[in-house]
Amino acid sequence: MTTVAAYAAPAAKAPLERTTIERRPVGEFDVLIDIKFTGICHSDIHQAREGWGEAIFPMVPGHEIAGVVCEVGPGVTRYAVGDRVGVGCMVDSCQECDNCRAGLEQYCDQRPVWTYNAVGKDGEPTYGGYAQQIVVDEKFVVRVPDGLALDVAAPLLCAGITTYSPLKHWDIGPGKKVAVVGFGGLGHMGVKIAHALGAEVTVLSQSLRKKDDGLKLGADHYYATSDPATFEQLKGGFDLILNTVSAPLDFPAFLSLLRTGGAMVNVGLPEEPVQVPLAALFGNRRNLTSSNIGGIAETQEMLDFCAEHGLGAEIELIGAAEINEAYERVVASDVRYRFVIDIATI
Amino acid sequence: MTTVAAYAAPAAKAPLERTTIERRPVGEFDVLIDIKFTGICHSDIHQAREGWGEAIFPMVPGHEIAGVVCEVGPGVTRYAVGDRVGVGCMVDSCQECDNCRAGLEQYCDQRPVWTYNAVGKDGEPTYGGYAQQIVVDEKFVVRVPDGLALDVAAPLLCAGITTYSPLKHWDIGPGKKVAVVGFGGLGHMGVKIAHALGAEVTVLSQSLRKKDDGLKLGADHYYATSDPATFEQLKGGFDLILNTVSAPLDFPAFLSLLRTGGAMVNVGLPEEPVQVPLAALFGNRRNLTSSNIGGIAETQEMLDFCAEHGLGAEIELIGAAEINEAYERVVASDVRYRFVIDIATI
Repeated sequence: MTTVAAYAAPAAKAPLERTTIERRPVGEFDVLIDIKFTGICHSDIHQAREGWGEAIFPMVPGHEIAGVVCEVGPGVTRYAVGDRVGVGCMVDSCQECDNCRAGLEQYCDQRPVWTYNAVGKDGEPTYGGYAQQIVVDEKFVVRVPDGLALDVAAPLLCAGITTYSPLKHWDIGPGKKVAVVGFGGLGHMGVKIAHALGAEVTVLSQSLRKKDDGLKLGADHYYATSDPATFEQLKGGFDLILNTVSAPLDFPAFLSLLRTGGAMVNVGLPEEPVQVPLAALFGNRRNLTSSNIGGIAETQEMLDFCAEHGLGAEIELIGAAEINEAYERVVASDVRYRFVIDIATI
Repeated sequence: MTTVAAYAAPAAKAPLERTTIERRPVGEFDVLIDIKFTGICHSDIHQAREGWGEAIFPMVPGHEIAGVVCEVGPGVTRYAVGDRVGVGCMVDSCQECDNCRAGLEQYCDQRPVWTYNAVGKDGEPTYGGYAQQIVVDEKFVVRVPDGLALDVAAPLLCAGITTYSPLKHWDIGPGKKVAVVGFGGLGHMGVKIAHALGAEVTVLSQSLRKKDDGLKLGADHYYATSDPATFEQLKGGFDLILNTVSAPLDFPAFLSLLRTGGAMVNVGLPEEPVQVPLAALFGNRRNLTSSNIGGIAETQEMLDFCAEHGLGAEIELIGAAEINEAYERVVASDVRYRFVIDIATI
């Protein structure tokens, strides 16, 4: 066992505070990682505040983890001490079901073991990346390619793969028109990746406040959804709408922006129960669907793609003592575009 | 102009009665058809009773039309007098938009001209197939292949294409598992076509009342949705759910039956506003979508497919005087499986 410093929420809605946690001994196929940077994802807050239901406390959030391997178990073949690596939302899965075998561990029939707020196969709670070190089975570790700095790579482990996976699944590339709803941590990565895939990219944001950034980061167009004219003007125009907003929306209005056969993919799960009128799907065989992160192999593919295209997250680097303040700013949509914790400051 | 006998609803919810209507003169590209058989579709009733909103009266319903060409305009090239033909839900469209050019006239940007309860490009109301004759632009006429009797072919023009189109769009074939929800006019054609496409077919019906028919017509399995065990047993099992029921359902329960990436396609539009909880789509990138009939070329393809596989509708042939009684029986789900009007009896 290794005792490491961490930041944890002792109870639902309580502020996070410095503490220590135990990491398991490095097993045969385990990798011990010195965490360098961890992104703050909105889902850290949903969970620390029990917005998605009952959670496990104390909770060490963090599933956008980038670091350096400092020890490997005797059976480890893929990584060596000194390797730059990442860990995302999962640290294990059954590895036997059809989904796992298809590289879709995120849809594991037994549910994957989430990086935190879950219970591992050993019966122990999992603790995430707001900590100095983590022990992970090498199968759930990905490599951060050379040329991708660890601080801007960290958010890719959730925000990157969450947007990359549906863009690939729905075959986005040249000639396709993509709308990204919301221009925050997920949205700005959606724009960068969709642009790099060759699509024509439109941001649909509540206001035009971040328009300059949007155009700079790869959007071709930027519209305010607070303006009803937006919906008139863009009617029937998109092959794919990537909805990164985890709050209730006017779904019929957004669905009306889809081309025949187009899809609206929701990647943010609202805390409130949201109802969609079935009638809004009729007319042009529109699809309403969701996507949840991505599998391990696809996460590696995404990191390689981002490295190749020079894509990292836009970040605000903070010290660990600023986590609670950062949470408030995330809730207020006041971050450009991802807070990343410098783990050296824990 | 030609005066022909027809059955019409004089006003919303009024019984249909015998009357006469005028058909336009046969234009350059028009085909005059002696109607032999017309199916009774549930949507005839929805519209005659204004269940879907304000309608045009008097209304001559009927968009499952099979007959024989008895006159052609001078510019007609595809059909000759004596040809066995069909007309479905559309008699015109803009023919210029992206959807029309892609053979998706049913999703025409200007809306297609529906076979009845619509206004044609000439500003006149359209009247459907509960009538002795109809005049239609040859582009919206399809050929009934030899070997397919006109009476069992008639329902294919709506019930056939409505189920064929989504099965093809979602790439159903050998190795795929399809559930057909509802075993009525649409459902029984969905079963026949999915089976002929090589899929493993399961009927999900309220009760097991029609189980013997279901298995005889091509279903591999038949389950009652009134039994909660059905949903436990079939969880995560289907690539596609074809929902032919135009009434509110427990959507989360049905969505839970989809495999990862599977789709629930709704082809029946409920009269009531139906809300679907967005959360039911999360988990396995499940799709909720719809499909509306099919394009003209695809309708021809479907008829050819049905002829090749010996598929017609299961019908109860009625005289025109029985239309009102048949409507009541359709509403009570008391028909096996499609009423077809023998137009000779008008």
